[in-house]
Amino acid sequence: MTPEDLKLLVRTIPDFPKPGILFRDVTTLMGHGEGFAAAVALMADKVAASGAEAVAGIEARGFIFGAAIAARLGLAFIPVRKPGKLPVPVLAIDYALEYGTDTLEVDPGAVGEGRRVVLIDDLLATGGTALAALELLRRAGGTVSHALFLVDLPDLGGAERLQGAGIAVEALLDYPGH
Amino acid sequence: MTPEDLKLLVRTIPDFPKPGILFRDVTTLMGHGEGFAAAVALMADKVAASGAEAVAGIEARGFIFGAAIAARLGLAFIPVRKPGKLPVPVLAIDYALEYGTDTLEVDPGAVGEGRRVVLIDDLLATGGTALAALELLRRAGGTVSHALFLVDLPDLGGAERLQGAGIAVEALLDYPGH
Repeated sequence: MTPEDLKLLVRTIPDFPKPGILFRDVTTLMGHGEGFAAAVALMADKVAASGAEAVAGIEARGFIFGAAIAARLGLAFIPVRKPGKLPVPVLAIDYALEYGTDTLEVDPGAVGEGRRVVLIDDLLATGGTALAALELLRRAGGTVSHALFLVDLPDLGGAERLQGAGIAVEALLDYPGH
Repeated sequence: MTPEDLKLLVRTIPDFPKPGILFRDVTTLMGHGEGFAAAVALMADKVAASGAEAVAGIEARGFIFGAAIAARLGLAFIPVRKPGKLPVPVLAIDYALEYGTDTLEVDPGAVGEGRRVVLIDDLLATGGTALAALELLRRAGGTVSHALFLVDLPDLGGAERLQGAGIAVEALLDYPGH
């Protein structure tokens, strides 16, 4: 299946979470066995080409794609978690949302000094969460040079923000004009 | 790698989350590329043998193993989510925790009437969360005959509870006496 085929499996929900927003719902792609496996295979090819030694996924939908890619390639999987989930001392980062703030946490021992890590999430919008995850992984010692998403909404500027932080950005499916 | 090899990759944290509990931390296994891929491959063999058409994973660590297994086998992945995460009308179930209650949600359209679903999570303890997920998937139309875990703590009785609900239970790693 090609990326164009995969786009047909993503459900678009108008006016969610608020009027005027077209929500790209990737759970319908996950629910299509052949499509999900093809998306993971295509993303894994990009991760392999990046030379990464480990895959970091952002909770929770980033776990779905990140873990599947890591297992396919035999790479380590690093969960970037919401607060209070890890049973060990963590590094944490707070970051701004449209309303309020949120926090991400990682076990620095899971990252490893100098290990080449690729950052994975399902969807890139404004890039706020991905930027926070990038900074957190770097503070934990990781060498993060690539971020990979299933879906990019390029008009929201996330890729430019991440590139400004010195990282290459790729996505399998683009929705210009979202 | 054998299950005994994989056990060496699970970190044990004493007195977490409270005194007297030995917490089995599977993030160290995920962080070992070869070990994570081997665990996913061994679990996927069991899923394939069950005849499942779809894999349901419980948020959030169940996403990590469930999605990797689904992608490996070319099966659909169904996320069983915490409340408020899905952008569509959901079926929900409340269930009791040691203190208070929690809720799981699923998109019934993702389950599909009569589809053979295997339930996946990282760890089986008392089985409360897994039982709720089982009931939810059945209400959504799924035919759930198997549950599969990376780790079972058999002394806590989760497998017996799930078997009492008419489901076969398997785990890759057992910790009697936990």
